[in-house]
Order: sequence, then structure tokens, then C-alpha cells
Amino acid sequence: MPSNPRRPRLAPLPALALLALLAAASLSAQEAASSGDAPAWAATAAELRDRALSEEERDTPWEILESLTTEVGPRFAGSPGDKAAIAWGLRTMEALGFEAVRAEPVTVPHWVRGRNEGEILAPFPQPMVLTALGGSVATPGDGLVAEVVRAGSLAELAALPDEAVAGKIVFLDQSMERRRDGAGYGQTVGIRSIGPVEAAKKGAVGLVIRSVGTGTHRFPHTGGTRYDEAVPKIPAAALAIPDADLLAAQLERVQQDGADPEPGQRLGPVRFRLVLDTETLPDEPSANVIGEVRGRELPDEIVLIACHLDSWDLGTGAIDDGAGCAHVLTAGALLARLPEAPRRTVRVVLFANEEFGLSGARAYAEAHADALDRHVLAAESDFGAGRIWRFALLADPAALPDAEALAEVLAPLGIEWDGNSARGGADLIPLRSARVPLADLTPDGTHYFDYHHTADDTLDKVDPDLLAQASAAWAALAWWAAETDADLGRAPEPYGNE
Amino acid sequence: MPSNPRRPRLAPLPALALLALLAAASLSAQEAASSGDAPAWAATAAELRDRALSEEERDTPWEILESLTTEVGPRFAGSPGDKAAIAWGLRTMEALGFEAVRAEPVTVPHWVRGRNEGEILAPFPQPMVLTALGGSVATPGDGLVAEVVRAGSLAELAALPDEAVAGKIVFLDQSMERRRDGAGYGQTVGIRSIGPVEAAKKGAVGLVIRSVGTGTHRFPHTGGTRYDEAVPKIPAAALAIPDADLLAAQLERVQQDGADPEPGQRLGPVRFRLVLDTETLPDEPSANVIGEVRGRELPDEIVLIACHLDSWDLGTGAIDDGAGCAHVLTAGALLARLPEAPRRTVRVVLFANEEFGLSGARAYAEAHADALDRHVLAAESDFGAGRIWRFALLADPAALPDAEALAEVLAPLGIEWDGNSARGGADLIPLRSARVPLADLTPDGTHYFDYHHTADDTLDKVDPDLLAQASAAWAALAWWAAETDADLGRAPEPYGNE
Repeated sequence: MPSNPRRPRLAPLPALALLALLAAASLSAQEAASSGDAPAWAATAAELRDRALSEEERDTPWEILESLTTEVGPRFAGSPGDKAAIAWGLRTMEALGFEAVRAEPVTVPHWVRGRNEGEILAPFPQPMVLTALGGSVATPGDGLVAEVVRAGSLAELAALPDEAVAGKIVFLDQSMERRRDGAGYGQTVGIRSIGPVEAAKKGAVGLVIRSVGTGTHRFPHTGGTRYDEAVPKIPAAALAIPDADLLAAQLERVQQDGADPEPGQRLGPVRFRLVLDTETLPDEPSANVIGEVRGRELPDEIVLIACHLDSWDLGTGAIDDGAGCAHVLTAGALLARLPEAPRRTVRVVLFANEEFGLSGARAYAEAHADALDRHVLAAESDFGAGRIWRFALLADPAALPDAEALAEVLAPLGIEWDGNSARGGADLIPLRSARVPLADLTPDGTHYFDYHHTADDTLDKVDPDLLAQASAAWAALAWWAAETDADLGRAPEPYGNE
Repeated sequence: MPSNPRRPRLAPLPALALLALLAAASLSAQEAASSGDAPAWAATAAELRDRALSEEERDTPWEILESLTTEVGPRFAGSPGDKAAIAWGLRTMEALGFEAVRAEPVTVPHWVRGRNEGEILAPFPQPMVLTALGGSVATPGDGLVAEVVRAGSLAELAALPDEAVAGKIVFLDQSMERRRDGAGYGQTVGIRSIGPVEAAKKGAVGLVIRSVGTGTHRFPHTGGTRYDEAVPKIPAAALAIPDADLLAAQLERVQQDGADPEPGQRLGPVRFRLVLDTETLPDEPSANVIGEVRGRELPDEIVLIACHLDSWDLGTGAIDDGAGCAHVLTAGALLARLPEAPRRTVRVVLFANEEFGLSGARAYAEAHADALDRHVLAAESDFGAGRIWRFALLADPAALPDAEALAEVLAPLGIEWDGNSARGGADLIPLRSARVPLADLTPDGTHYFDYHHTADDTLDKVDPDLLAQASAAWAALAWWAAETDADLGRAPEPYGNE
């Protein structure tokens, strides 16, 4: 039996449509009468919120996520799973009652991980659990063997003399801080994204990093890295955190005293073998999968709610970003089942290839360049399956009082209003540049980086009740933005470092 | 930096000897005066208990375990790591002040895991995280491909008609219950130990099982399996629990309705590819590593405290059974540092190859057959690094009042007396047959099977304070048994099913 017995696995997707009919028929209007001074949209926003938590609907996002992880699983850009995910997205949107369901073409890179292995050869031989950084070049077939030099950060690496690094494998050994807002990631991820270039500039022949994550289980954390055409491309991998501990402990023994526990011998340097059988293949076709709830009055004005459909190749992408897709698909489905459509069009976008270059985000912004000024709001769920605790907007300040009224609808879900401070998801970067207003519904990320980009990102890590809580918030947000009389205007000009 | 920052890594082993001198010099006799009616051994037992928890000594078991996992790591029978572990055991015992340190020869099997892979081919292709059961035969080089048939237990397998099983890969999908005493393991492990034989008897061509463990992380659980020469040997592997969930979910979709989510199609059966590149090589030399604190009055009477030095190949064997070795090595070292030796000899045995056939246990019983009647007590720590909560004996009932006095010394550690009910560890089975009295100091096993026999059995899973608590109990137990005037006699005849 599945190890998460909290909810029975429900019927396959065709039954979801039936469930939708049942749900729509029982829509209560109890709060509509109690609106008083509240804005016209507020009663339905509250109804949507409560419906998402109802007996009939609370399993909807879980069913969606179970379906995606079971019927597709890993869906890395360019892989067969990516194509299976597109088919899944189209049939799921149809089953959930979306309109204008389509796949908009995107071209994606196609990097293949292959076999990734490593070992400490000396002073104390041990196998290492590691995985290639996304995009890493391969090692020679029998592996790259070199002495290891450690640096605790990019700054420490920069401070090393070139002759201490040349010909060696650099070990970037920086720990990530666990935080609810995930800010530890941004503070650490540079060792992954630019580590290979910085190490190669000093003559290194390879790079291993401590996984940029907070999990203590023995999973290495992948994620994209970038090369610079002006610098030699060196193979690069992430060690699982217990393996980084082991490598650090061996280095410390050598550096501290050099004393071999066997009498009369001294410890030699730490030598490492890295075997990465990676490959970059020709680009592949992919797609942004899009469905809509068409607006009844202003169908050309777009409220965009999004996730990314691709995942890394190691896990089944349950939290990154299957959960986000479950949130916004459920929100869209709840709107689609309302007796009356919202004023504006709610567009649900499942972006292609967020993980390895934002291909889908760029393609969307290009394909819809002429319509970006009619995107009244964009929001993406791409921070896992935790409890939503924060709502923020980034729009014309004149819209803030109306957004605060939405915050009151969200408050019973335990969500705090954080003002005009939204940042948006990675796939919204091109829309942010075009000053599309943004909203954030931020999940608790305390445990997000325990699983993120590892093989352990699987369905059993997700709590169905938290999926329902988040979906309730997403439905209310989408309804508000599609219905409000407030003018969100344009977001402020981005700062240089945004 | 290591991810477990609670304790700095201390100096390499030579410094341990210095630490030992310091510790011995400061031995307090404060409780000796307060013995009153207590047995003569009680004051020193309490002193040893408190010394193990003292500032000077509480890190000793942690240092031992850090040394073993860093300088040796995986040490599966027959592997190079097994030989490195023997060298480590000898030098560690010397450094800790043991006498009569030696390696007693043991011949061990040598099975090699090789590459272990699997995937669901249909209806929804997905890679599977799995590992071969210990001793499994290999599949053909390009893998074994067959349809999957599920059974929820060995009984359900037995109830299937042969024609439902013939030519298929059986999936034994039984979940293990989490319990403090680990009893869920014994209730479930049959799917691993005899599953391949039972499946093959019905014509199966392969076996996959749900990992016999309680962890929900994506680690498959290995462990030995047994073939029957009269039954075809089929390859067998354990799926990580999230992967067993996935396979079960796909099977359920096929069995429930057969409806393919793509219109107009029906789901075919679940097909699986299993690739196990295992190999059995010639036997290898290994050894039981033994050291003693020689008795001052009755040196030929033996108190045996033990662990097993080997581990499975996937992790670094921190909890299975590095922690047990840290417990008994620390206990022995504390006794060795006392100003006066105990009356009887305390013998610390690090058994060879517990995991894959109890080779060391059998060799010990054979080599010491003439002396087993002078083994006054035997006890093994082989249930992880949790807090000790139970003390039990298995001896002549006449010795129970004295054991209860020991229980009073252990009580401040939070340890409950469980009477004449000890069962001993696996390596004590031959001694149990010879009616050697046994004792148990039982750790809390609630989380033991989250890590046991997986790649995730690493140092960071161990709490140094709990190692100290356990070592305190082991030191007191060893002193008591080596010093007491009570006659432990012989253990009762084993029951047939013991």
C-alpha cells in the first residue's frame, strides 16, 4: 500500500470531471449575503476559499499531484518525461474544465546526466554519493583523478593562490542556512552556479561542492551551473551532505597533523576520483501548457497564475514544482466551476523548462509580447508544498486598499499581509521586466531545501491538507484579480539588482 | 564544516591515549563511601557510569565512531573496507589501552553488489530506486524484463495461483510497523530472507520487495537473502519506499479500471526492467578483533561484550554497528583505566561478518569451544545509537537479586529492569546454544530502521550524548559481571523457536 495512507488514491482523471459537477452544484452562497461594506468580489473569494477546503474539494490538488507523479514522474527538459508531462498537462486541463487548452511551443536544451560516481582514493578510500551539476561537462571515461583543495566559500577560493589550486579538484564547502523564507539558498547557491567558472579561472581541473540544501539525508542536490566561454569548462558535481562531511573530515586530518594512524607513516594528500558521464544532445521541442477560464466582460485582460511543469531528473518533482501546479490547476478548476465566469480571463500557465534556463518563461514573454500590457497580474507557485503564510502584491499603490481587503479573506488561512513587496517566481522575470503587477503567496520553506532538486522529492513528502490550504489562497487571489474594480496599474521599475 | 557541529572533531587516535591518562587520574571515589548495604561492586559501577558521562569522557564513543566512519567507512565482508576495519580495530584497541589485542581468523563470503538499476517500462515509464538483496544472483546484462504481479505478504503470494506468477516479477509489498523494540522488523523481514525462494517456487523470474524499513526517504534497504539449492535462484531487489508506493499506484490503476488516460486506449500490464550486476567471488580472509581487560583474580572467566565490525556496503555503518562498537570499546577502555582490574577478564569482541552469515560468531564459538563454560556473561550492542531504555538478564534465577542491584545503578540513566528475559544479539546465537548467560542493554529503536542497511546510515544520524549514555550503561554492566560474587550459572535451555 502507498506509505501515505491519509487519503485513498482516488479514481483516475476522468472521475475528476464528475467530482467537479458535484462540487459546482453544492456551491454555497452563504457568505454572499454577509458582504456588507465589503467589495463585490469578496463574497465569492471567500466562497472559493472555503470550497477548496471542503470535503468535496480538499483532495483535488492531491489527486492532481498524485496523477502527475505517478503517470509522469521525472520530467526534465528535453527528456521523454518532459513530453509525457505536456500530454498530461493537456489532458488534465481538459478534464478540469479549462477552456482554450493548448501547448505553445518552446525549444529546450537537452542535457543528460548519465552515470555520476566518485570516491576518495586517499588517505582513507571511501565511495562518495554525488551527482553532476546540471550542464556539467563529462570527465574522461575512467574519471578525473586529482588532489583536493578545500575552500569554505567563493571568497575563500578567490583568496587562495593560483598555485594552490592549479591541477586540483576544488571542494567548495559552504553550508546553507535553514530559513522559512529560503533566503539561505540565495546566499549559498553561487558555489553551484558560478563555482565551476571561478575554480577554473584559478586552474582547477574539477569541482565538487557541498550540496546547496538543508537535508541531512544522503541525497546530492543538483541544479544548473553556467560556464563562461572564455574559461575552461571543468566537470562539477555536488556531494551529499554526509559525504561533504566525510571529505571535510579527511582533509582536516591531513591538514591538522598529517599523522597517519599506522605507526611511522604520514598521511598523504586527499585524492579524489570523479566520474561524470554527462552529455549535451541537440535541443528538443517542448511546450508551455496553457488553459483558461475566459473572462465574461474583459476577456483580453489576463490574470496569469503559473507553475513550472518541468522538474529535475532525480526525483518525481512532487514539491518542485508539482505542488505549485496542483495549486494553480486547482484554483483554475474552482473558478471554472463557478456559475459565472470572472470579469477578466484567468490564464493558468504550466511553464516549460524553468530549471535549466527559463526557456518557457522567455518563450511566453516573446509570444505574448503585444499582450503584456493587458496582463493585470502574474503570480507563480514555485516554492513547494508548505503552508502559505504570506501574501504580497507589487502593483500601483492605489490598488493596495483593495488588496488589503483580499488579505482579510486570506487571514483565516493563517496568511499575513506583507504589503507592496512581491517578488514573483523565476518564470515571471520577463513579465517583471515588462512591469506586469505581481503577487506572492509564499509557502513555509523551512523544509523545502531538504528535498528540492534531490531524488527524495517525491509524493510522500507532501501533506494533502497543506495543498488544500494553498489552493484555497490561490483561488481567492485569482478571483480577486480577475474581478476587482481596483486598477493594479503597472509594477514599479525593477531595481538594478532585482 | 561537518554538519554535526555539536562536538569539534577531536585529535586523531594517538591523542585518545593521552585523554585516557587524564581521565584515569581524575577518577572520583565519591560514591564509594556511600555504598552502605550495596554490594561491593556497586560503588565502582556507579563511578564508571558517571565517568562515562563526565566532561572528560563523554566524547570518547563519539571520537571512536567518527574515527571508524571517517577512516574506514563501508566494511562489508570480503571487501577492502573489511580489511581496513580490522587494522582500525587493532590500532584502536591498542590506543585505548586494551590487553591481548589480536585478530582471530575468520573466513567470509565475498559478494559484490555492482550496478543495481530498475525501471517501470509500462504503463507509465519511471526510473526506480532499488538495490539488490545481499547475495542476489545477477540478471542478464541488459536486464530482466517481465510483467509485475503484486502480493501484500508471503501469505498472499502463497495464495496466488501458480499461473498468475509464472514468468513474472513478483512484487512483495508489505509495510513494516515502526516500534521502539523493532519488532516490526521480524514480522516483515521474511519477504526479504525467503521471498526469492517462495516466489521462485511459483515460477517467478524475479522479485522486488518494498524495503523492510521505516524510513520514507528514498533509500532502498538491503540485507541478506537465502536461496534453496532445490529451487531456481532468481534475482531479487528492494525498492525504496517511495518507489514501492509508485509501483503500487501504477498497479492499482491497471487493476482498478484499466482505463488509459489517453482517450480510446486501455492500460496494459505493468512491465518492469531489473538490472543487477552482482557477483559472488571466492571467500576472503577476515577476523574477529579482540581485546581484553585481564581479570585480577579469575582471568580465565570471561565477560564478553561485543559488537560487529562489518557493515553493509551502502552506508558507513555508523549506527549498524559502529555505534555498538563505540559502546563496548568505550566501556572496555573505561575499565582498562581503572586503578584496579576487575576480578574476571572483560573481553571485547568486534565480530566479523555479522551481516552476511554470522561468520565471525561461528568462528568464535568454534575457536573457543572449550572455554564457553567459562564465559560467565555475553552481551552485544547491535541495535543502533538510541537511548538505552531496557536492561535484562538471562541467567540462573539465583543471580537476579544481584542483577536488580545493578538495575538500580542503571536507573538514573533512565533504564528499566526487565528481569530474566534477555535475548542477546545475533552474534551471540552460538553462545546462547551453549547456554552462556546473556544480558541486553536495549536502545530505543524507534528510528533505527529509518537508516539501517541503507546508504543513509552515516555519522550525522548519531547523537553524541546518547552514545555516552549507552557507554555508561555498558561500562557498569561489564564491571558488574566481572566483579560480582553472584553465580550467574547457565542460561536456560533455548526454546525450539528461539
